[in-house]
Amino acid sequence: MPKKFHDPTQQAEGKAARWKNEPIGERHPDLTMHTLRPFNAEPSNVALQEMITPKGQHYRRTHAPVPVCDDTYRVSISVEGQAAKLFSVPQLKTYPSKELAMTMMCTGNRRGEFNPDGQTAGLPWKNGSISTAHWSGCMLRDLLAEVGVSNIDKAEAAGLNFVTLWGLEKYHVSIPLRKALDNKGDCLLAYDMNGETLPRDHGYPLRAIVPGFVGARSVKWLDRVIVSKEEVKGMHQTGIAYKQMGPNYKSVEDVTAEMVAEYPPIDHIPVTSAVTHPEPGCKVIGGQTIELKGYAYSGAGRAIFRVDISVDNGKTWSQAELTRVSSKQGIRSSRAWAWVQWRAMAKIPTDCGENIKIVCKAVDDQFNQQPHESTSIWNVRGILNTSWGNVNVTVGKASHL
Amino acid sequence: MPKKFHDPTQQAEGKAARWKNEPIGERHPDLTMHTLRPFNAEPSNVALQEMITPKGQHYRRTHAPVPVCDDTYRVSISVEGQAAKLFSVPQLKTYPSKELAMTMMCTGNRRGEFNPDGQTAGLPWKNGSISTAHWSGCMLRDLLAEVGVSNIDKAEAAGLNFVTLWGLEKYHVSIPLRKALDNKGDCLLAYDMNGETLPRDHGYPLRAIVPGFVGARSVKWLDRVIVSKEEVKGMHQTGIAYKQMGPNYKSVEDVTAEMVAEYPPIDHIPVTSAVTHPEPGCKVIGGQTIELKGYAYSGAGRAIFRVDISVDNGKTWSQAELTRVSSKQGIRSSRAWAWVQWRAMAKIPTDCGENIKIVCKAVDDQFNQQPHESTSIWNVRGILNTSWGNVNVTVGKASHL
Repeated sequence: MPKKFHDPTQQAEGKAARWKNEPIGERHPDLTMHTLRPFNAEPSNVALQEMITPKGQHYRRTHAPVPVCDDTYRVSISVEGQAAKLFSVPQLKTYPSKELAMTMMCTGNRRGEFNPDGQTAGLPWKNGSISTAHWSGCMLRDLLAEVGVSNIDKAEAAGLNFVTLWGLEKYHVSIPLRKALDNKGDCLLAYDMNGETLPRDHGYPLRAIVPGFVGARSVKWLDRVIVSKEEVKGMHQTGIAYKQMGPNYKSVEDVTAEMVAEYPPIDHIPVTSAVTHPEPGCKVIGGQTIELKGYAYSGAGRAIFRVDISVDNGKTWSQAELTRVSSKQGIRSSRAWAWVQWRAMAKIPTDCGENIKIVCKAVDDQFNQQPHESTSIWNVRGILNTSWGNVNVTVGKASHL
Repeated sequence: MPKKFHDPTQQAEGKAARWKNEPIGERHPDLTMHTLRPFNAEPSNVALQEMITPKGQHYRRTHAPVPVCDDTYRVSISVEGQAAKLFSVPQLKTYPSKELAMTMMCTGNRRGEFNPDGQTAGLPWKNGSISTAHWSGCMLRDLLAEVGVSNIDKAEAAGLNFVTLWGLEKYHVSIPLRKALDNKGDCLLAYDMNGETLPRDHGYPLRAIVPGFVGARSVKWLDRVIVSKEEVKGMHQTGIAYKQMGPNYKSVEDVTAEMVAEYPPIDHIPVTSAVTHPEPGCKVIGGQTIELKGYAYSGAGRAIFRVDISVDNGKTWSQAELTRVSSKQGIRSSRAWAWVQWRAMAKIPTDCGENIKIVCKAVDDQFNQQPHESTSIWNVRGILNTSWGNVNVTVGKASHL
């Protein structure tokens, strides 16, 4: 585990008694743990090579002890200022159910790669605070209809622009109402993950699923859903946690309240990609042809249409072969909610030095590009490191027979 | 004028008689002309510093002689396979009118900067195939309603997904029907530009205005509007003209038909920016504080929230001051159809060499970033050079008094 660091989104451990009900058994031993209490952990590169992240290995991003729920659980749905309706999970299961494969990514994915250029405030994630699962539940829009909100034009005319989501642990964020009501927005109130009851770590008994948005909006242990005029005030919405400053702001203390107020919170993840094979630091042989693997993803339902790979840090390029979770998540569908897995064969140069950097960059179907170096997008909160995916390996000479 | 080059979107001049009715008088002498027949030209940096591009200086991208129209002009609106309805401009003026400020950008903007890394196929635009105007007209959706298409869910259920736009000169492209019907999509059939009748060069008597989309979709001299199941086949939609290959495809001849078919056409422009002051090659003095100016823009209605500038090619950064065309085109409105103009004061270093590169990079409100060097996004068609805006200047020493 890394040393302690300052993270404005990370609570202190507090009293041990608060943590006695953690779902230890759900946590795969191959996870790389960043903190135990609250539990924050990411899958290995091997797990990241799977289209659907293996059981127990989906990344975890929590801020508090995992809530304990039983059959008395109800989710509250309301329009702000009006009476709420309560729903049990069995009641939610009487609504039409939907399953979708969705990639969830933490804003801090690859934050660790920023730190050589200056310490950032947050968990030093490697490239694994991203995972993919099949989620099942009822449609959020069907439940909003139960409190009289089904037409976006009418709602906006009434000044209603957001859906605020509260978790039982008091975590709270907002998403645009337009996203929630869009019949192609695919927002769920999910009770199942990969065909099984939602694990406690992932939000049992109910989790909001907001496809195409940053993971922070898919609120776990869902307590209240409130159609609201304004987005909710709070660290993860209007506060500094999800605001991206310029690279010249070296300390959280330098950031002014005006900047925090003026800058937008994060909805969608920009296009990104990573190399998940070979492992960092491994030895390859000059002239050898090796297999490269990785993932690529873009938010807002944008599909990846091209992944360029290079074994000479960008001097020469070729294209990787892409695998999608489903043909329905294709180019220009606006509903490409899951990453692509990519694979390529590449010949290691013989005229290079002892170390080479293997890089990848993806282009989404709206032609967004990844920035090259993380240096230029470094920011004190360490969010959205979407620079070229990369891995450093060492090059040996072929043994002569 | 540059030498002849191969451009798959550029027709040959043909017989001189075809060009006798060109609107020569509309063309400002300060424009930088790339070809006369057809007329392709871009404004100067001085003109690009204006929020609304001055009269006569809005960039021109044409493929054929400018059509000649008179009062017999009618635009045809139809659903494919059904009878069309014809509308004169006076008839269109009986519908509610709307004015909006919109930036239009050619896919090839800044193509010229690609060419030192390898010749691209297309006009070698500098940073001026982008301009902004106030456009007025009726709403495209109001006219689609006249042929029975007003509900996107019903239309999509009937298999109708696109609106195909044909110009009188036979230019043709498609846009998603969803965009055309969206009440926040703001698609116009425009008859006025900056409060005056549309100039002939800009599409008189009627031009489609598709905000947030690449300029190629705002079809001039509009002849037919057809609600269609498939996007139209043609060079500028399904053909190679607007397909972006990897940097390893060095010649148009290397591109396979399969790649062209598989890759998406361009809808939105990715986030971009440019420096429009100082001029390239000008002399600055070490230690002097100078004014920098430029523009920044992103497609799909995304607002620019931050522009970072650097006078040492990205080693150190600061933020520019932004001016918007209107407070309505603000952050997260999804309707930021116009660029921002930016301005900054910056001190030229004293410890640098004789030449420095001043750079800028913008971030839009969905956190998309610009790639650093154009080398890594070089493509044979030379489209979407959205790398950091930049200008090289020479540094002199201050004279001692």
